[in-house]
Amino acid sequence: MRLPRIAELDESSSGWGFYLCARKERRTDRAGAEFLAVVLQDVSGQISAKVVHDVDAFQREFDAGDFVRVEGRANRPYQKLELLIEKIRRVDEAADRPEGFKEEDCIPCAPRPIEDMWQELRSRVERARNPWIRQLLTGILDRHGERLRIWPAALTVHHAYRGGLLEHVLKLAETGEALAAAYGADADLLLAGAVLHDLGKIDELSYDGVTSYSLHGNLLGHITIGVMLVREAASAIDGFPAGLRLRLEHMILSHHGERELGSPVEPMTAEAFILSSLDSLDATLHQVRRHVEDDRSEGDFTAYHPRLGRVLLKPSGR
Amino acid sequence: MRLPRIAELDESSSGWGFYLCARKERRTDRAGAEFLAVVLQDVSGQISAKVVHDVDAFQREFDAGDFVRVEGRANRPYQKLELLIEKIRRVDEAADRPEGFKEEDCIPCAPRPIEDMWQELRSRVERARNPWIRQLLTGILDRHGERLRIWPAALTVHHAYRGGLLEHVLKLAETGEALAAAYGADADLLLAGAVLHDLGKIDELSYDGVTSYSLHGNLLGHITIGVMLVREAASAIDGFPAGLRLRLEHMILSHHGERELGSPVEPMTAEAFILSSLDSLDATLHQVRRHVEDDRSEGDFTAYHPRLGRVLLKPSGR
Amino acid sequence: MRLPRIAELDESSSGWGFYLCARKERRTDRAGAEFLAVVLQDVSGQISAKVVHDVDAFQREFDAGDFVRVEGRANRPYQKLELLIEKIRRVDEAADRPEGFKEEDCIPCAPRPIEDMWQELRSRVERARNPWIRQLLTGILDRHGERLRIWPAALTVHHAYRGGLLEHVLKLAETGEALAAAYGADADLLLAGAVLHDLGKIDELSYDGVTSYSLHGNLLGHITIGVMLVREAASAIDGFPAGLRLRLEHMILSHHGERELGSPVEPMTAEAFILSSLDSLDATLHQVRRHVEDDRSEGDFTAYHPRLGRVLLKPSGR
Amino acid sequence: MRLPRIAELDESSSGWGFYLCARKERRTDRAGAEFLAVVLQDVSGQISAKVVHDVDAFQREFDAGDFVRVEGRANRPYQKLELLIEKIRRVDEAADRPEGFKEEDCIPCAPRPIEDMWQELRSRVERARNPWIRQLLTGILDRHGERLRIWPAALTVHHAYRGGLLEHVLKLAETGEALAAAYGADADLLLAGAVLHDLGKIDELSYDGVTSYSLHGNLLGHITIGVMLVREAASAIDGFPAGLRLRLEHMILSHHGERELGSPVEPMTAEAFILSSLDSLDATLHQVRRHVEDDRSEGDFTAYHPRLGRVLLKPSGR
Amino acid sequence: MRLPRIAELDESSSGWGFYLCARKERRTDRAGAEFLAVVLQDVSGQISAKVVHDVDAFQREFDAGDFVRVEGRANRPYQKLELLIEKIRRVDEAADRPEGFKEEDCIPCAPRPIEDMWQELRSRVERARNPWIRQLLTGILDRHGERLRIWPAALTVHHAYRGGLLEHVLKLAETGEALAAAYGADADLLLAGAVLHDLGKIDELSYDGVTSYSLHGNLLGHITIGVMLVREAASAIDGFPAGLRLRLEHMILSHHGERELGSPVEPMTAEAFILSSLDSLDATLHQVRRHVEDDRSEGDFTAYHPRLGRVLLKPSGR
Amino acid sequence: MRLPRIAELDESSSGWGFYLCARKERRTDRAGAEFLAVVLQDVSGQISAKVVHDVDAFQREFDAGDFVRVEGRANRPYQKLELLIEKIRRVDEAADRPEGFKEEDCIPCAPRPIEDMWQELRSRVERARNPWIRQLLTGILDRHGERLRIWPAALTVHHAYRGGLLEHVLKLAETGEALAAAYGADADLLLAGAVLHDLGKIDELSYDGVTSYSLHGNLLGHITIGVMLVREAASAIDGFPAGLRLRLEHMILSHHGERELGSPVEPMTAEAFILSSLDSLDATLHQVRRHVEDDRSEGDFTAYHPRLGRVLLKPSGR
Repeated sequence: MRLPRIAELDESSSGWGFYLCARKERRTDRAGAEFLAVVLQDVSGQISAKVVHDVDAFQREFDAGDFVRVEGRANRPYQKLELLIEKIRRVDEAADRPEGFKEEDCIPCAPRPIEDMWQELRSRVERARNPWIRQLLTGILDRHGERLRIWPAALTVHHAYRGGLLEHVLKLAETGEALAAAYGADADLLLAGAVLHDLGKIDELSYDGVTSYSLHGNLLGHITIGVMLVREAASAIDGFPAGLRLRLEHMILSHHGERELGSPVEPMTAEAFILSSLDSLDATLHQVRRHVEDDRSEGDFTAYHPRLGRVLLKPSGR
Repeated sequence: MRLPRIAELDESSSGWGFYLCARKERRTDRAGAEFLAVVLQDVSGQISAKVVHDVDAFQREFDAGDFVRVEGRANRPYQKLELLIEKIRRVDEAADRPEGFKEEDCIPCAPRPIEDMWQELRSRVERARNPWIRQLLTGILDRHGERLRIWPAALTVHHAYRGGLLEHVLKLAETGEALAAAYGADADLLLAGAVLHDLGKIDELSYDGVTSYSLHGNLLGHITIGVMLVREAASAIDGFPAGLRLRLEHMILSHHGERELGSPVEPMTAEAFILSSLDSLDATLHQVRRHVEDDRSEGDFTAYHPRLGRVLLKPSGR
Repeated sequence: MRLPRIAELDESSSGWGFYLCARKERRTDRAGAEFLAVVLQDVSGQISAKVVHDVDAFQREFDAGDFVRVEGRANRPYQKLELLIEKIRRVDEAADRPEGFKEEDCIPCAPRPIEDMWQELRSRVERARNPWIRQLLTGILDRHGERLRIWPAALTVHHAYRGGLLEHVLKLAETGEALAAAYGADADLLLAGAVLHDLGKIDELSYDGVTSYSLHGNLLGHITIGVMLVREAASAIDGFPAGLRLRLEHMILSHHGERELGSPVEPMTAEAFILSSLDSLDATLHQVRRHVEDDRSEGDFTAYHPRLGRVLLKPSGR
Repeated sequence: MRLPRIAELDESSSGWGFYLCARKERRTDRAGAEFLAVVLQDVSGQISAKVVHDVDAFQREFDAGDFVRVEGRANRPYQKLELLIEKIRRVDEAADRPEGFKEEDCIPCAPRPIEDMWQELRSRVERARNPWIRQLLTGILDRHGERLRIWPAALTVHHAYRGGLLEHVLKLAETGEALAAAYGADADLLLAGAVLHDLGKIDELSYDGVTSYSLHGNLLGHITIGVMLVREAASAIDGFPAGLRLRLEHMILSHHGERELGSPVEPMTAEAFILSSLDSLDATLHQVRRHVEDDRSEGDFTAYHPRLGRVLLKPSGR
Repeated sequence: MRLPRIAELDESSSGWGFYLCARKERRTDRAGAEFLAVVLQDVSGQISAKVVHDVDAFQREFDAGDFVRVEGRANRPYQKLELLIEKIRRVDEAADRPEGFKEEDCIPCAPRPIEDMWQELRSRVERARNPWIRQLLTGILDRHGERLRIWPAALTVHHAYRGGLLEHVLKLAETGEALAAAYGADADLLLAGAVLHDLGKIDELSYDGVTSYSLHGNLLGHITIGVMLVREAASAIDGFPAGLRLRLEHMILSHHGERELGSPVEPMTAEAFILSSLDSLDATLHQVRRHVEDDRSEGDFTAYHPRLGRVLLKPSGR
Repeated sequence: MRLPRIAELDESSSGWGFYLCARKERRTDRAGAEFLAVVLQDVSGQISAKVVHDVDAFQREFDAGDFVRVEGRANRPYQKLELLIEKIRRVDEAADRPEGFKEEDCIPCAPRPIEDMWQELRSRVERARNPWIRQLLTGILDRHGERLRIWPAALTVHHAYRGGLLEHVLKLAETGEALAAAYGADADLLLAGAVLHDLGKIDELSYDGVTSYSLHGNLLGHITIGVMLVREAASAIDGFPAGLRLRLEHMILSHHGERELGSPVEPMTAEAFILSSLDSLDATLHQVRRHVEDDRSEGDFTAYHPRLGRVLLKPSGR
C-alpha cells in the first residue's frame, strides 16, 4: 500500500513511498547497535526515519540528496512520529516513474503554481504607471527571475519552501495596492517595495531543495544585499531619478520597521510605514495558518507556538 | 481684516475672528503686571493668546467655554506663535452670524462630513452577511449613535477631533475588508472588530468640544469598557451564538496587539491579528499625515516627531 | 509493602499503592517494543510510570481518569525517577476501601482543610463593616462557592492544586488586613480585592482533579472574566454605589500591577497598589516554599528555579 | 498678618513669616535688571522667591543657610506660585522668638515626633528574640543613633525630610512583623532587615537641613556602604554567627529586588523577598500619599505623577 | 578689552571679539519689544546672544553665516549665560585682520592640527602589510580626502567639530593596533575598520562650519552609505579578494555592536567585536572628557550628563 | 593504543588513557539494566562515559574525584560523543607514572604556564609608579597568591579553568596599559583595576579542580566580596589615601558597566569606563576564540553560540 503524504502519516501508517533524502548519518544506539538516521522529505513536510537492520547493505543503496523509494511503517517511541524503514533504495527512473514517482512531489512548494504567480507578478509590474519603476522592476525580474521564481522566503520561519518568496511578494503587492488606495499613498512605490524588499534573500539564502544561509547572508544580511542590488540596477538605468532611488532604498532598509528587528533606519514615509506593517503581518499570518493547518492536537486550541508565544484558536473551534 | 485660520497664522497676521475659548486664567507676569492667559480654538487647531491691557474690563466679557469674537495680532516672543488680543467679547449671535460666525468653524472636526461617514458605516453594516453580526452592530449604532457620530478617537495622539472615532472606524472597515479578502479571513468579523474595538472610548473620554478622560476611562480603560458594552448588547439578543460573542470580545481585548500596549490578552485568531495590525497602522499614518501637513519647517524633512521618535520625509521633498 | 507518597519515593521504593491515573498512552520504544506510558498522581504530586509487559492485558484494566491500584518499583533511568508497573487495575471500592483507598489521598490539595479555610473566609466577610461589600461578597460566595472552595489558583505556577485559589485568597485577606492597618487604607476594599481579584479563574480554568485552560480563559483571560462577574453581581444589588463598584473593578483590572504583566490599567489607588504588591509576593513566596520543600539536592542551595531565575538558600543551610 | 505655611500659600497670600533660606543667587532679568533669586523652606515644603528692589541692601541682610524673617506676597507669573519679597533679614533670636520663631518650624520633618519613633524602634529591637540580632542592632543604634534619628530617606523621591529614614524603617519593621507572622518567616531577620537595609544612607547622603549626595554616596552607593557598616559591626561582636551575618548582608544587598534596580544580587530567601517587596511598596505608597495630599487640581484625579507615570484617584473622589 | 573665548566667559565678561554668526532671528519679547536673537560661535563653543536696541540698524549689519565683530557683555538672566550685544557688524578683513581676526578661531575644531592627524593617518595606511588593504585605503583617502580631513564625527554627541571624524578614526587606529597585538587579531583589518567604519558620515552629514543631516543621511544612514562606498572602491580594484571585501563590509555593518543600536548585523569575527567595542568606548570617553572639561559646577562631581545618565567624578576631586 | 585527548576524540577512537573522574552515578537504563554514568576530564575538556557490564565490580574500583585509568572506545548514540568504558580503575602511582600519568594532564588549565603569568603580574605590580597602589597590590598578591595563581575566572562562561582568573587579569593589565596611554588615563589605577576587579571570585567560587559557587558567592556576589577584601587590605595600610581607596572601590563596583549586569553603581571615571569595557571585551573574545577552536562543524561558520546568540565566522573561512 502506498504511504500517505508525510503530513498525514499516523501511527497506523505502513507501506511504501517516494521521498527526497535530506540527511543521512550512521549512528550507534545506547545498546551499541548501529543504525542509519535519515531525514525524508516530500511536498508536505519532513520526517525522521531509521534503518535498524541490514545497515551495511542499505547504507550503500542511497545518499543524502537522492530521491529514494522507501518501505516501512510509522512509529511513535515518545513524542514524535518517526518512520521505521524496512527497505530503501535510490529511485530508478525507468522502474519508478510508471509507479508515480515525480521529483516535484518530494519538494515542499508554495500552494499556488509558480508559473501562475510569476505571470501575476509580471502583469502587476507592467501595470505600474511610473515608467522608471516599471523599467527597474522589469530589469530585476529579467536578471534575477531564475531565483525569484523558486526561492523560499526564509529558512524556517515562514514561506520556507519553493516559491515562498514569490508567494510573499505577491501577497504584499496585493495588500499594498489596497492600502495605497485607502491611504492615498503611491501605489507604484508600494509595488516596488513589495518586489524589492526581500530581494537580498536570493543571495542571503542558498537553495537547492534545501535552504541554508550563505556566507554573504550571514555577514551582510538580506537588507544590505538587497539595497546594493537595487542601487546597481538603478545605476544601470540612464536618468533614473535620484530621489526615487533613495525612496526605494529607504523602503528596503526600513522594512523591518524597527532597529531591534534589524532595520538600520526606521520608516520615514507613509509607504515605508505601510510596507513594513504589511510585511510583518504577512509573515505572522503565514505562521498562524501553517500552525493551525499542521496542528494535530485535540480541543479548541492548537499546541503552543514558541515563536508567537501563544496557543491559537482553531477556526473550527466552538 | 479677518484673521486666517489658526493653522495658517504667521507673524504678520493681524485682524479679527471667531473662536471657542478653551481656557482662561488670570496671571501676573514677572514684572508684576496682570494679564489674561487664554487658549483659543478653531476648526484648524489651537493657539495661546493674551490680554495685557484693560484686563479687568475684558475679564468680564467672556468665560472659558464661550464662543468669542477677538481682535488682535500674532506675535512670536520665543519659539511659539501666540495671539496678542486687543479686544475680546462673547459672541452675539444676532450681530455675529451675519458676519459669518458658525459654531462648527470653531471646533476641530474630521475632514469628511459626519453625515457622509455615518451613512457609509450604516451601509457597511447592512451589507454584513452574518445576521447576528448585522443585528448586533445595528443595535450598537442605534443605541450609541449620538456619541459614535461625533466622538474623537483620542485625547491628543490621533483623530483627536469631532468625528475622529467614526473616521478611524470607517478606515478600519475599509482596510479590514481588503485584508479579509487577501487572507480569506472572515470579513464580517473584521467589520465588527472595526466598529467595536474602540467602542469603549465613548465612556472612556468625555467630549463636549473639549476632550478629557472620564472617571471610568482612567480606572477601567476603553478596552474593558468596550467589552462590557458588547457583552451587554449581545446578551440582549436572543440566541446570539456564544462562540461568536467570544471571538468578538477577544478581538476587542487583543486589539492593542501586545500586553505592554494595554491588551490583557494577545491575538489568537487571524482576524484579531489583522485588526490589531491595521489599528496600529491607521493611528501611525494619521500622525504621519498630520505632522507632515502641519509642518512649517524648511528642507526635505519635517521637525522631529517626539512620539514617533524621528523626522519624516516630506512628500514634496526631492 | 505499601509504597510511600509520590513525593517521598526514591530509587529503592517497591510495593503497591492507590493513585489517580492522570494520563495513559500506548507507545513503541526505540527497539520496537510496545508499552503503556502512564502518569500517576497522589496528594503529594505526580510521577511518570510504565507498563512494559502484558501490555495488551493491562491496557484493558484501566483508563485515564480512573483511580487505580498499582504494584511496582521505582527506577531512575536518567535524571528523573519513574515507576515500573508490574500490576495495575481499576480500584474496586469493595475490596480496596478496607485496604485504605481514599479518593482524597489521590488528589493534590492545599495543606489546610478546605472546610476550615471556607469558614475563615465566610467569617472574614461577615466582619466587613461596609454593608455593600459584605452583601456583594456574600452573594459571590453563595453563587460561586462550589468552585471557589476547590479551585486551584493556577495551572502550574503556584497554588496549583485543589483549594489553592481559596488558600491564596485567604492569605491575601490576612496580609491585606495587616497592611490596611499599617497604611490607613480601606480594610474592606482590601478584603474585597483579595476575594475578587482572581475570581475570573473559576471560568478561566477548568478543573476536575486535572486543571486546564478553558475556551473563555484563553480568549478573555481571568482579569476580564472577573470584572464581568463582579459587575454582574453588583448590578444585581439595588443601589450598589457606582463609585465603590468602580474602585473594586479597578482593583481587579490592575492587580497584576503592570501592563506587561497583563493588567490593562495600572494601580491608581493605595488599595490597588497594596493588593497587587501582596498578590505578587504571595505567588513568589509560594513558589519559594514549594521549591525549597521539594528540593532533593545536596548543599546549601536548591537546584535552579527557572521561573525565578535563581537558586534559593535552604532555610536549613549554614 | 502672618503668612500661612508654604504648602498652604495661594495667590492671595500676603504677610510675614520665618523660613530657612535654602538657596540665594544674584541674577539679571531679561530686561537687564538685577534681582535676588531665593529658595525658602519651612516644615511644609519649599518655594521660590525673589527680591526685586533694593537688591544691594537686602543682599547684605542674609545668606543661604540662614533662618530669615520675610515680608512679601504670593504671585503666580506662569505655572508656579512664587513669593515676591518686600523685606528680608536674618532672624534675630531675641526679637523673633517672642514672635514665634522656632527652628523646627523651618525644616520639613516626618509627621510623627522623632523621639516617639526612636523609642518605638528601640523597644522593637529590645523585643527581638535572637540575642545576636538584638546585640547587633543595639550596637548600630548606639553608634549611628545621632544620624539615624534625623536622616532623610532620600534626596527627593520619598521620605525626603528630617526623620524620614526612621519613619521608613519603622514602617518596614511594622509590616515586616505582620508578614513574618503570615508566612512563618523569621521575624527577627525581618526586623534586622528593616533597620539595616538603608543604613548606608547615613553615609550616602549628607544632611544638615538640606540633603545632598556625598562623595561616598555617588561612588559606592548606599547598598555597599550599608553592607560594610554591618560587616564592621558584626565583626566587632565576638562569636557572631557567620551564617546569620551572611543572611543579613544578603538582605541588604538584595533589597532593591532586581539588578536593574541596583541590587547586585537578587533575593534568595523568603525574608529577602518579603523585605524587598515591602520596601518598594512603602516607597510607592509614600509617594502616592504625598502626591494626593499636595495636589491642588480639580476633579477626581490628581495631576500626572511623572515618576509613577500616571494620575492617581483622589480618596475624596466619587 | 578683548572678550575671552566663549567657553571661558563668565558673568563679569565685557568687551569685544570676533565670531561666526551661526543663527539670526528677529523676535518680539513678552513686552512687545523687538530684538535680534543670535547664536555666536568660536573655536571653543557656542553662545546665545541678543541685540535689544537699534534693532533695525544692526539687523542690516550682518547675516547668519557671516563672521562678525561684536561688542557686549555677558549676562545670566536665569540658568544660562548669554551675551548682550551692544554693537555688531560684519568682519571687515582689511580693518580686522590686523586686530587679530582669523577664520579658524571662529570654528570649533579638533584639538590637534588637522595636517598632523592627516599625516599620521597616511603613514599608518602605508605601514599596512596587506597590499589589498593598503591599496583600498589609499584610494579612499585620495578620493574622499577633502572631506575626511575636516568632517565632524557627529551632529552633537561626540567629536562634533571640524576634524572630529579624523580624530576619532585615528584614535581607533591607535587602540585597534594595541588590541590586535593583545589578541592576535588581524591588525590590518582593524586599521581598515578604523578608517572605514564611519566613512558614510561624509555623506550622512553635510558640513560647512555648521553640521546637519543630509537627505541621504536620514533615509539611508551612514552605515549603509559607508558599505556602498567601500564596495564601490573595492570593485574598482582588480582582483580584490571577495572574502576580504566581505570581512570589511561586515565590520562596517556591525560596528554599532547591536541591532538596537542600528547595526543590521552583529559582530561575527574577533576584529568586528574589537572594533565595535573600541568605537563605543571612544565615543563615551570623548563625552566624558568634554563634560568634565566644560563643567563649571562646584563640588567633586560634574552636573548630570543626560545622555550618559549620571554625574561624573572630576579628576580634580578629592 | 593510547587514546587522544578528550577534545580530539572521534567516533573511531579506541584505547586507554588517564583521567580525573569528575562525577559517578549508578543508574538503570530504560530496559532495566544498571550501569555507571561517569564524567571524565582531562586537560582538554570533559566527556560523558558509561560502564555497562560488570557494574558491581567496577563500581568498587574508583570514586568521583579519583584519577583513573580507563580502557574503552568512543560512541555517538545520538548527538554527542561518549565513551563506552571497558575497564576502569583508580590510578596506581607506582604502575602508572612510568606509563605517563601526570595529574596536571587531567585538569583543564590556561594555555600559558602559571608561573610565567605570575611572574609577569608581579613585575607589572612592581613597575607601578604610585607607591600606595604598589603596596596595596603587593599585599593582595602575597595574601591571596595561593588562590590567585590557580583560580578559574568563572564556572562555565569564560576562562573556566585552572589559572583562568590570572590569565584574564593579565590580559586586562596589558590592554589597560595600552588604553591608559591612548587616553591619558591613570595607568596605575587601571593596573589596580585589572588585578582587583574580580578578586572576590576567590571567595565566590570554590575550586579544587572542579568549580562551584560558594555560600558567600551566591549570597553576596564577587563584586561585594571583592570590595570588602580591598577595603580590608587598604585599611591595613597606614595612611592609605581615602580618595584613592574610593576610586579603586568604585572601579570594582562598577566593572560590569551597567546595573542590569550586576554593578550596583555605574562608571563615573574614565578609568572605570575603560576597565568595564575591556573586561567585557575580554570575556567575549575568550568565548569567541574557544567556540571557534572547539567547533567541529563544516562550512564557513561555527555552530550557533547560545550565549552570544549567533554563529561566528571561522578565521579559516573563505
